[in-house]
Amino acid sequence: MQIILLSGGSGTRLWPLSNDARSKQFLKIIPAPDGSMESMIQRVVRQLNHAGLDAPVTIATGANQQDSVISQLGEAVNLVVEPSRRDTFPAICLACEFLARQKDVSRDEVVVVMPCDPFTEQDYFDAIRLMAKGVEDGAAQLVVMGINPTYPSAKYGYVLPATPAQADTPDKSNPVVPVREFIEKPDVPRAEALIREGALWNGGVFAFRLGFLLDLAEKYVKADSYEQVLANFSAFPKISFDYEVAEKASSVGMVRYNGFWKDLGTWNTLTDELAQHTFGNVVADETGSNTHVFNELGIPLLCLGTQNLIVAASPDGILVSEKGKSENIKLFAQQLKQRPMFEERRWGTYSVIDFVEFPNGTASLTKRLTLNPGCAISYQRHTHRDEIWNFIDGEGIFVLDGVSRPVTRGDSVVIPAGHKHTLKAVTPLTFIEVQNGSLLIEEDIERFPFSW
Amino acid sequence: MQIILLSGGSGTRLWPLSNDARSKQFLKIIPAPDGSMESMIQRVVRQLNHAGLDAPVTIATGANQQDSVISQLGEAVNLVVEPSRRDTFPAICLACEFLARQKDVSRDEVVVVMPCDPFTEQDYFDAIRLMAKGVEDGAAQLVVMGINPTYPSAKYGYVLPATPAQADTPDKSNPVVPVREFIEKPDVPRAEALIREGALWNGGVFAFRLGFLLDLAEKYVKADSYEQVLANFSAFPKISFDYEVAEKASSVGMVRYNGFWKDLGTWNTLTDELAQHTFGNVVADETGSNTHVFNELGIPLLCLGTQNLIVAASPDGILVSEKGKSENIKLFAQQLKQRPMFEERRWGTYSVIDFVEFPNGTASLTKRLTLNPGCAISYQRHTHRDEIWNFIDGEGIFVLDGVSRPVTRGDSVVIPAGHKHTLKAVTPLTFIEVQNGSLLIEEDIERFPFSW
Repeated sequence: MQIILLSGGSGTRLWPLSNDARSKQFLKIIPAPDGSMESMIQRVVRQLNHAGLDAPVTIATGANQQDSVISQLGEAVNLVVEPSRRDTFPAICLACEFLARQKDVSRDEVVVVMPCDPFTEQDYFDAIRLMAKGVEDGAAQLVVMGINPTYPSAKYGYVLPATPAQADTPDKSNPVVPVREFIEKPDVPRAEALIREGALWNGGVFAFRLGFLLDLAEKYVKADSYEQVLANFSAFPKISFDYEVAEKASSVGMVRYNGFWKDLGTWNTLTDELAQHTFGNVVADETGSNTHVFNELGIPLLCLGTQNLIVAASPDGILVSEKGKSENIKLFAQQLKQRPMFEERRWGTYSVIDFVEFPNGTASLTKRLTLNPGCAISYQRHTHRDEIWNFIDGEGIFVLDGVSRPVTRGDSVVIPAGHKHTLKAVTPLTFIEVQNGSLLIEEDIERFPFSW
Repeated sequence: MQIILLSGGSGTRLWPLSNDARSKQFLKIIPAPDGSMESMIQRVVRQLNHAGLDAPVTIATGANQQDSVISQLGEAVNLVVEPSRRDTFPAICLACEFLARQKDVSRDEVVVVMPCDPFTEQDYFDAIRLMAKGVEDGAAQLVVMGINPTYPSAKYGYVLPATPAQADTPDKSNPVVPVREFIEKPDVPRAEALIREGALWNGGVFAFRLGFLLDLAEKYVKADSYEQVLANFSAFPKISFDYEVAEKASSVGMVRYNGFWKDLGTWNTLTDELAQHTFGNVVADETGSNTHVFNELGIPLLCLGTQNLIVAASPDGILVSEKGKSENIKLFAQQLKQRPMFEERRWGTYSVIDFVEFPNGTASLTKRLTLNPGCAISYQRHTHRDEIWNFIDGEGIFVLDGVSRPVTRGDSVVIPAGHKHTLKAVTPLTFIEVQNGSLLIEEDIERFPFSW
């Protein structure tokens, strides 16, 4: 058995903690069993391991999330990076081609595809086991998960079994029931009617044999190697797995899941599940109530008498929202759009700490960066900016135009535009980068090979 | 006639916009007649000029506010800096000694002492004119201002006239009535009783002849020069003018002021007087109401559905307060105390943009500083920190150990601990300063003479 986790989403709904580079599944705010904090994607990978499914995990994601996955999950998972974001069907095709061609997984092996951020308990993984067994036993070519709906939501897809379930729990000896129809995001009255007919939420979990999907993929991309699949990735239609596969499949079954399941996609649903009310440097008085406060900035945040609020401060911005209004963030997402001010990269993290534009058209941007020991940034060159690096902690090796020198606290190096440079950390290495130029964007970068 | 404005206060009640270095009277958030924003101290000096009192203004303040006064009022006022903060009696003595010894003001000239931040209209200055005239006409040695109380506040001092006023407006031909008693901050029931007896709020405005106060000052400090007064400043008792002078004086009169007067000392009273609801980079949705938002940070601040809130973000911290609870800031002032993260200095401004402490006991602090053209910082040396200066805009002259060089955008200079350095701006000069060391405080500085 193989697990494919789909990691997508641009994450504006949890602004300012989430941004284009840091989707909600990477926020480390969920209490973990050992008392630390973990992200939603770390939680689901931990739960998969504990469930004893004994299945390798492959994460399908885009280039913008690649570094976050590596930083949070490291070697524990395979990583498939989509050349461009095209929707779930192409993503699943690519991950399946990867398993077949790079990992030599057999066409007969069962693959389970699931989202990377369901907030569930351990019995969710028992249902996944039943789905895989249903495929193995030949109950259906494609088995999906139906989640007991708790209210007639217009946000989810629905799956209608051919015959309404007899009980709330699946028959463990024969848990797979045939599916009659998939319904995408109905309006609330239609959702109410569907629930009366016995429909369940479509949990976005799919089980099938690897060969089943490879055959579907081959309709669009015929290739001799995984590299050829990657090169022809844009030939896959931009369509969801539900539309392209689930709704068209001739043999579809469903396993019902009655346990705890929650989509922590908004501030409101997220804060319901948090064990603590404040994160970071926060002081709240006794007269407030039902207020959740997240402070990722280095300055104190004081709340006095606040009721039913979500307050979140990050290098990207500050949100103060009445809890019931927090979903309206999406109305302002474009207005608030700016470069990400915090990113987790494979080599460490950076925060933008200052940005100024001057009347003469130039600008200056200041970052604090931390490289993890042994990690290096790419050998790179910028066209439109100079950089000055001020080392404030740790030890590393700095290379400018092929010439290397050790750097440590108190050192300052100037990197004029057009010059190639890289940096490797020996111990945790922190530095302040001051960029000067006319165009200060992450995209002003050319990368070159370098061997340390 | 001479005006002395007392500028004091540590300003935690308007945290995080005010701090030890930036008291509330320096916040530029009051709408000025020309459409710009002015601070309370700028407003009162402008109003004094418009009132046609034709009186020189002297500001008595402490070292921590000196640079803010120079930056906001420049050459328009005299400046008297108290060697240490000791209360209003010593401050007024020092300012009077300054007028007598440095400005050759005659002992007979009338001096009016007033706070630097009353929020009033122009008729307040008419009352001041009547007070001065009362002293000149010999109605009393000391004339104070009584303000019509609008509620029985326990926050103010009261002044009880010998005979209750006959009308709400002073008799312009004979406006000075004798004072029977001063009462300091009574509790609310006592304040109610006082108001029934005809007491008024003590506005902290005092008029007297210069010689009157010089005689009182001489009881504590006998000196031949202003420098000697400064050197012996600590011989003045740490006591308020009310206790030391007003309550003991044998001939005290009062002029009643019936006009608009407000103490903008708290967020709640301040926001009542503001023409706009948002300051800085703020987005607020339509569903909120009665919310005032101040954002001095470079990142966006989004408010959704907020009701009756004060939200203020500055480099010092973030406040989210229910309006009725905002006075409770004082309970948390100690807890939130840190170095000021923004200061206005005589040469320009600085913001702290980053601070990190490392496990090895060292720390790093990053500032952005802007020097105004022609301005220079002092020639200085630090013992416990190195500094790296990264110039990001403008042109200036940098001096290290007596050797000067021009600096401009893109330049970086390293200043090791123990080396003397200074900087002068030719055009507006902005730079990022990275401090590294074991003790990163403003007090780690030795200043030396330098001639440009």
